[in-house]
Amino acid sequence: MIQNGQLISLLEKSFSFWDKISDLEKAALMDNISDIKYEKGTCLSGSDDSCAGVFLIRSGTLRVYMLSEDGKDLTLFRLNPGEICILSASCVLKLIRFEVLIEAETECRILVANANFFSDLAARNVWVENFSYKVAAERFSDVMEAIQRIFFLSVDKRLANFLLEEIERNNTNVVPVTHEQIARYIGSAREVVSRTLKSFYVLGAVELSRGGIKIVDKKLLQSMSK
Amino acid sequence: MIQNGQLISLLEKSFSFWDKISDLEKAALMDNISDIKYEKGTCLSGSDDSCAGVFLIRSGTLRVYMLSEDGKDLTLFRLNPGEICILSASCVLKLIRFEVLIEAETECRILVANANFFSDLAARNVWVENFSYKVAAERFSDVMEAIQRIFFLSVDKRLANFLLEEIERNNTNVVPVTHEQIARYIGSAREVVSRTLKSFYVLGAVELSRGGIKIVDKKLLQSMSK
Repeated sequence: MIQNGQLISLLEKSFSFWDKISDLEKAALMDNISDIKYEKGTCLSGSDDSCAGVFLIRSGTLRVYMLSEDGKDLTLFRLNPGEICILSASCVLKLIRFEVLIEAETECRILVANANFFSDLAARNVWVENFSYKVAAERFSDVMEAIQRIFFLSVDKRLANFLLEEIERNNTNVVPVTHEQIARYIGSAREVVSRTLKSFYVLGAVELSRGGIKIVDKKLLQSMSK
Repeated sequence: MIQNGQLISLLEKSFSFWDKISDLEKAALMDNISDIKYEKGTCLSGSDDSCAGVFLIRSGTLRVYMLSEDGKDLTLFRLNPGEICILSASCVLKLIRFEVLIEAETECRILVANANFFSDLAARNVWVENFSYKVAAERFSDVMEAIQRIFFLSVDKRLANFLLEEIERNNTNVVPVTHEQIARYIGSAREVVSRTLKSFYVLGAVELSRGGIKIVDKKLLQSMSK
């Protein structure tokens, strides 16, 4: 469990409205925050009311995505430690008319602020509401980046970028994911990913095995990503 | 030119922060608004500083879109009379990290609030800032709708939807646009649009001519749009 002192300093740092709410409201907010551990793969988006809560990520990575009726999956953005997920509490943002899916991509430790409490606070205090819409604007920017990547970059560039990001993020030269997973991340189909990876292999950029994709020529991959 | 009384009642209706700014600020804001007519086809997005101004549309339609380096065009949303365009003043919104293109799709009459003035006002007054981010959140919702349409609907459904919207919007059964334009609007390629229109013709839903597309069986088109 998180200590009170640690919680206060985290909220102070993460919630820019902290000094615009009363001491009573601060105490109430703290009472309405839960420190929760989620297993890898857990779906964190709410049920019908789509108001699971405002998430402050302490460790791990969340993936925010959309799913079509026939199972097509589109990654919009990822959230990392220190970042706030507000689309998990769309009841706070009356002008957000859509819903997204959120999953724990790794094991996650998250501070979850109760959505109804937060929503009431935002309705009473313009600073809290403004904070929430500003976080949404950051996510808007993330989504626009995703659109640019998916619409305007060819599959081979998207794939090269994805592999470079993964080895950077995990500090290793092996990317242990299936072609199916990659297809989901870069917004393509498994067959297309397999074909493109094969061409990367023929060019000498990667080696393919059951365990994943090994980057053998990072420079070549970088030149292919541009 | 718009009359003062008419301007005040328009601003009062459109800018929810109106009663949260001082009389002096109201007067200054009015001084910083221009009533401008744009010809059809005019590009309204700013130059380098991307801060053309906050637009309040009086008449006509704006199209907001993205363009890839190789000319691929993606319509994000359209804005109609009474609506506000804030992405044309991204300097007001520090957390919006992207730029979009904006064109007058028809002849437009627009009230343009000076971006620097508006930006200063938002920096001083949280209600103005909050208003701006809330407008951005509405556009975020529009963009998410566009993504769902483009990613998750097949081309024939998108095309049927587009044709139905157009005859609804213009109150006629002829849609006077080229296949090239349609491709741009629905995020596809001209060849694909031509082929799909041909199949609509074979099924008896439309007639094709130089002047455009004539809807001859609206019910059939509706059943194809779902």
